[in-house]
Amino acid sequence: MIPPARHVSSHLQVQVKSTADLVFSVAVSGDHPGLSESLIFRLDGEEIEAEEQLDSSRSRLHRLRETAPGTLTVDYEADVPQPAPAAQLQGIDEILYTRPSRYCDSDRLANLGATHFAGLTGYELMSAVTQWVRTKVSYQPGSSRVVDGALETYLSRVGVCRDSAHLVIAFLRGLNMPARLVSVYAPGLVPMDFHAVVEAWHDGAWHLLDATGLAPRDSMVRICTGRDAADTAFMTTLAGSTRLRRIRVDARVDGELPYDDKFSFRTLS
Amino acid sequence: MIPPARHVSSHLQVQVKSTADLVFSVAVSGDHPGLSESLIFRLDGEEIEAEEQLDSSRSRLHRLRETAPGTLTVDYEADVPQPAPAAQLQGIDEILYTRPSRYCDSDRLANLGATHFAGLTGYELMSAVTQWVRTKVSYQPGSSRVVDGALETYLSRVGVCRDSAHLVIAFLRGLNMPARLVSVYAPGLVPMDFHAVVEAWHDGAWHLLDATGLAPRDSMVRICTGRDAADTAFMTTLAGSTRLRRIRVDARVDGELPYDDKFSFRTLS
Amino acid sequence: MIPPARHVSSHLQVQVKSTADLVFSVAVSGDHPGLSESLIFRLDGEEIEAEEQLDSSRSRLHRLRETAPGTLTVDYEADVPQPAPAAQLQGIDEILYTRPSRYCDSDRLANLGATHFAGLTGYELMSAVTQWVRTKVSYQPGSSRVVDGALETYLSRVGVCRDSAHLVIAFLRGLNMPARLVSVYAPGLVPMDFHAVVEAWHDGAWHLLDATGLAPRDSMVRICTGRDAADTAFMTTLAGSTRLRRIRVDARVDGELPYDDKFSFRTLS
Amino acid sequence: MIPPARHVSSHLQVQVKSTADLVFSVAVSGDHPGLSESLIFRLDGEEIEAEEQLDSSRSRLHRLRETAPGTLTVDYEADVPQPAPAAQLQGIDEILYTRPSRYCDSDRLANLGATHFAGLTGYELMSAVTQWVRTKVSYQPGSSRVVDGALETYLSRVGVCRDSAHLVIAFLRGLNMPARLVSVYAPGLVPMDFHAVVEAWHDGAWHLLDATGLAPRDSMVRICTGRDAADTAFMTTLAGSTRLRRIRVDARVDGELPYDDKFSFRTLS
Repeated sequence: MIPPARHVSSHLQVQVKSTADLVFSVAVSGDHPGLSESLIFRLDGEEIEAEEQLDSSRSRLHRLRETAPGTLTVDYEADVPQPAPAAQLQGIDEILYTRPSRYCDSDRLANLGATHFAGLTGYELMSAVTQWVRTKVSYQPGSSRVVDGALETYLSRVGVCRDSAHLVIAFLRGLNMPARLVSVYAPGLVPMDFHAVVEAWHDGAWHLLDATGLAPRDSMVRICTGRDAADTAFMTTLAGSTRLRRIRVDARVDGELPYDDKFSFRTLS
Repeated sequence: MIPPARHVSSHLQVQVKSTADLVFSVAVSGDHPGLSESLIFRLDGEEIEAEEQLDSSRSRLHRLRETAPGTLTVDYEADVPQPAPAAQLQGIDEILYTRPSRYCDSDRLANLGATHFAGLTGYELMSAVTQWVRTKVSYQPGSSRVVDGALETYLSRVGVCRDSAHLVIAFLRGLNMPARLVSVYAPGLVPMDFHAVVEAWHDGAWHLLDATGLAPRDSMVRICTGRDAADTAFMTTLAGSTRLRRIRVDARVDGELPYDDKFSFRTLS
Repeated sequence: MIPPARHVSSHLQVQVKSTADLVFSVAVSGDHPGLSESLIFRLDGEEIEAEEQLDSSRSRLHRLRETAPGTLTVDYEADVPQPAPAAQLQGIDEILYTRPSRYCDSDRLANLGATHFAGLTGYELMSAVTQWVRTKVSYQPGSSRVVDGALETYLSRVGVCRDSAHLVIAFLRGLNMPARLVSVYAPGLVPMDFHAVVEAWHDGAWHLLDATGLAPRDSMVRICTGRDAADTAFMTTLAGSTRLRRIRVDARVDGELPYDDKFSFRTLS
Repeated sequence: MIPPARHVSSHLQVQVKSTADLVFSVAVSGDHPGLSESLIFRLDGEEIEAEEQLDSSRSRLHRLRETAPGTLTVDYEADVPQPAPAAQLQGIDEILYTRPSRYCDSDRLANLGATHFAGLTGYELMSAVTQWVRTKVSYQPGSSRVVDGALETYLSRVGVCRDSAHLVIAFLRGLNMPARLVSVYAPGLVPMDFHAVVEAWHDGAWHLLDATGLAPRDSMVRICTGRDAADTAFMTTLAGSTRLRRIRVDARVDGELPYDDKFSFRTLS
């Protein structure tokens, strides 16, 4: 289906305690035709300039190299009237996204994936893994830590969206299917926040999987694509000391939210 | 100093048990002027073609997508008469290589690094971290596992070159210095094998650090550059089943091996 | 000093979902002269009988082997007019409490303890370890998991009383000092709950250490003594399925709470 | 069957580098009628006296509190003409041996055990768990570390006898069956060494399980009984510095070794 027009925004307020080198990943990526957007950084009310950098998956990162102490605000707004073209396989994606990464420790989970999903491949594998994580891992805010990887989630069986996504990815990679994390704006998500979902490469497409089922996939808008949450965090402090004081995310569609049966295969658009 | 001319080679013999998708990383990278090399893949004696792909750090990966069961051999030889130009900072390197990765779990070690290296930055930090790992971590073949990361090495205090390198990297990243793993041919290494060392970005250069001190840095030749051993493994099995049966690495220089004081700062050339 | 008379109580309400084998550890132990107490178990309002068992440290465990589904309540009250005699070394205590245990993984922390407390022994060691944990580990309810051991607390630097106690114990054992966990009633604790503290054997006495400093040690009353929280949990479900629905703990002294300087050495009485 | 007469011995040579507090667990326990034995400790050739202590499972520990630097030898020999009476349930064994312990982290493995052995109890459970570990975990000397627990073995699927035993125990405890580690002399074991097996309590007996199947259970002789290898190590250094330089274990039977079908239930005698 053609996704409806989407309107997304985010607002961050960060206390910079000592001069900081910061990276933000809040802007929509993916070449949406007709995209109109605004991204404004202000330090103590005064507008400052960020440097935009593209990562190897063409996510847009915004960097503030020497942010003086003070109150930093980040205001992003975008109108997304049209879907983005389907993501393609680039460079060494197949290799990169099949390897283990910090929070998707597929090498540790290899035996476990083989136990649970023996003999499955392709669409069946994607369905089975997503379904397994959906039914076995309880969504429970506050139950996980930012240092937790997929093995931890496998053992504890609780987590938030990033944890479920990491476990799906780790299982898929362990069974040789390229898989990656995507941070998205997700109209319909309750409570509204940044969301984390999975893209798995099979049969010529990056299939969009969401074990949480908390928002319709057809209206999600891509922000950042990477190996795991280490690559896609909406804010990274490379140097200095900061404290996130406020975060507000909004995402909605024109008209009704699309229906998601949670079983059919979709791509992010 | 100008590194001497180097001659390197590697030979792998792999039993492919079921049709396999394989990636090899054994070829020299880094734009050495006058490089002459040969890389030959043979399946049951018959030459087969590999596809060359560059990763985001311009390492050369060679992929054999559908390798039939049989005996695969990989033979690589290179004469490296000239040094490569110094590696530069590319794209989002500063961001990429400051983040935690699979085997450099700098987020877990952040408090520890702060304890051991409080207040140090730049050259002092690189020296102190390298020295710490050199004196605290015993080189002991067979003592570590391929799934071990830097935290494990920190706790057990034993490992091989990749473990020491991972720990150096994790400490540096935890203290906001970009650092990455490089697999190299290392003339002088005993016993001869592929070697793993560290590059840390500071003051406009990628400084070459080797906590093991097992070979002179001036004669090392770059193979693969990445976040950690997940990126730089000389062989990765993306699909299928394989068994490495033989590996032989050779690396030597014309004339005498350069002397390495293990303390001064060098770059890989 | 002579501890004041103490009055303690606890009330648990447990939903037994399927026939359960339960162990409770809520009763005061330690041979207090003049102790008067009452411990009543009720299933759906009807009083039922528990079996009392002593563990090797003479803690009193109360077991309900076949508890039918329903609402179980546990009501304990005790008046403790007199101090208990000082705990002695029994049987193989020195051996038992120097070994690593489930949540006091002193074998993993051995190198770390040696780093932080090199050369310290006896009273100095106890002081240094307690002080280190007090200043480095933040007390933060909800920050830790029941499966966390001392290494986890060392890395994350947050936790509750049991986490701090486990870390103190692990450090001490790693440096060859017998140490154990004691669950106590702790007049003055805010918010009131069961509390976990440490006893370390040195110079002929079990010294009472509390890295949290949240309540005066002189008025604490011993409940259960063991290797770690696996031994001292106030409720253990050996079989069946249960859910703790309410817990209320109370502990107070006659007159004023004793003052605790947090530095001098005390024993539990 | 009635076990044959057994003859066992062990010889240890330990270099004591600094004054050490040592515990040995090499002597047969279990009240064998007619047992004749000799246990001799020598420091630099001179006989010294050890103190015998019983742990809560009546294992015999021998302690040398202040062993001066030098060469310590331990020589043990025993003739065991008669079987020991069957082990009984004592004190809080059911509670103690159902709880998680250092190397049997049943709390971490609870979900996994439920996955693999859903619905099984009693004899079926013991058979299924033993069989699972026997077929899934490869016996591979040098593949594991002394700090590894059952979770690690579950993930890596390799180990030695103690690792297999820890995993069996952790699974059983996670499913509420009391289980414990026993170190034994094992006639028929190749290569000869101390061996580690499991006792599980069910239906009024401690059933002897050995996932390795490396020696007949009917001729094994109990040394030490405990929660896991932290309790049963043949040598523990409580203080000081030591180095084990030689170990030689011998165990044989009069006549032929009994046959072990590896499936029927046996008890240690």
